Amino acid sequence: MSLVLVPTAHGRAARSEGAGSVTVIGLGPAGAQWLTPEAQAELAGADVLVGYETYVDRVASRHGQQRFATDNRVEADRARHALDLAAGGSRVAVVSSGDPGIFAMASAVLEALDDADGAAGDVEVRVVPGLSAMQVAASRVGAPLGHDFAVLSLSDILKPWAIIERRLEAAAGADMALALYNPASKGRRDQLAQAIGVLRRHRAPQTPVVVARAVGSDAEAVTVTTLCGLDVDVVDMRTLLIVGSSTTRIISANGAGGRDRVYTPRSYPGS
Amino acid sequence: MSLVLVPTAHGRAARSEGAGSVTVIGLGPAGAQWLTPEAQAELAGADVLVGYETYVDRVASRHGQQRFATDNRVEADRARHALDLAAGGSRVAVVSSGDPGIFAMASAVLEALDDADGAAGDVEVRVVPGLSAMQVAASRVGAPLGHDFAVLSLSDILKPWAIIERRLEAAAGADMALALYNPASKGRRDQLAQAIGVLRRHRAPQTPVVVARAVGSDAEAVTVTTLCGLDVDVVDMRTLLIVGSSTTRIISANGAGGRDRVYTPRSYPGS
Repeated sequence: MSLVLVPTAHGRAARSEGAGSVTVIGLGPAGAQWLTPEAQAELAGADVLVGYETYVDRVASRHGQQRFATDNRVEADRARHALDLAAGGSRVAVVSSGDPGIFAMASAVLEALDDADGAAGDVEVRVVPGLSAMQVAASRVGAPLGHDFAVLSLSDILKPWAIIERRLEAAAGADMALALYNPASKGRRDQLAQAIGVLRRHRAPQTPVVVARAVGSDAEAVTVTTLCGLDVDVVDMRTLLIVGSSTTRIISANGAGGRDRVYTPRSYPGS
Repeated sequence: MSLVLVPTAHGRAARSEGAGSVTVIGLGPAGAQWLTPEAQAELAGADVLVGYETYVDRVASRHGQQRFATDNRVEADRARHALDLAAGGSRVAVVSSGDPGIFAMASAVLEALDDADGAAGDVEVRVVPGLSAMQVAASRVGAPLGHDFAVLSLSDILKPWAIIERRLEAAAGADMALALYNPASKGRRDQLAQAIGVLRRHRAPQTPVVVARAVGSDAEAVTVTTLCGLDVDVVDMRTLLIVGSSTTRIISANGAGGRDRVYTPRSYPGS
């Protein structure tokens, strides 16, 4: 098996045959149209794929390449497993949806590296970026994230709600647009209503809101509504929300089968 | 010339032969390894390329495809030109570095669309996302944007400094990591020092800072420093800065030719 070397412009040494490594690879949202050439080459060069089964299933299987597909809720175990395989000499690809660096597997792998002793703690870890869901969601309607914005996860599984509320308050108070990941799940139904309550204290009822569900998949549904028109009951764990700033505008759909367009202008009043 | 149809999962009608359109296409940072298959197909299918000459030069020329390469400082003119070409029946690709939806050409084109009358105001505008510089910069060092963060431009050309300072204050006060675009230019040397001053009021001196210059190009230089160690004089218009939150950690380089790794954990104290 030949080694795939991806040219790097930044002086990192090429990997030598025999040395294990972990590369955390972003597949982008569902849909092969966003898989970068870099990610393709890295996937082809890996000895082992590790990841949540839905993401591993998106990668074409290759003879001789092992696959470890696991449940989504064991990120720390998966990260540690990847390091152990690499410490044993394997070139391991940890596959992640979206951008592994944004609410995804890269932090989990680096946490495991930071905690690891011995050979696992010396493994070379690289990250290959991918498009994050907010970018595809934004592109579907125009450019709602065209100027300053905050990127927040509403999940309080790993952080206290008080810090989430403080960040929402801060971003809304300083008139940034917001991309909201993990706005709700089956078991988490109250946070989004609370979050919208915070935003409504700072933003006009007609502020544009983009509701993007399952971007890139067959089930994709992207709609444009407003802060007062948002139905929190339609939001689930596959949904990402984008909330405009005070300057975000809607261009109403024209006749040609179009949809409403949303954009945040580059300039701000007073400049 | 045949029409390239990119499959879309979200119900947008396929473009008909003869109808003009504008597609704002993200090339990603310098380097063909980040050009998505979607962007490649869109570039191949365009009648006309419009863009800043440095970006147009990154696209392989194709027989029969016109190219309008212009200076960087005429975004509004370029956007209007693209709409006019499309109103005349051309399939126009506006090429943008990075993600056109993040501090790039998509907002400029939508602003022009919003202002346009007649045929130019009815043009179908689509956006094809690309990797933004912050994503590649983050991936080079690990996952500094692995949890909640704010994305701000420090340029006060199109917005007042007061709003920039307010946003810095808010993001820093709520303990978000920050990606700072346009931190300085030849003519704008004071803002970064002021911005760092704001951040130092909220963050410890040892807070990790990633200084990423010209990611993806031959001139790429990515270094890890701290809020107190940052030399603002080395920052220029090709530089992007990432400033950690209070939880962002550095894993010191080990022996194997490595560099310091930086990541923001998924969990927050108190959860």
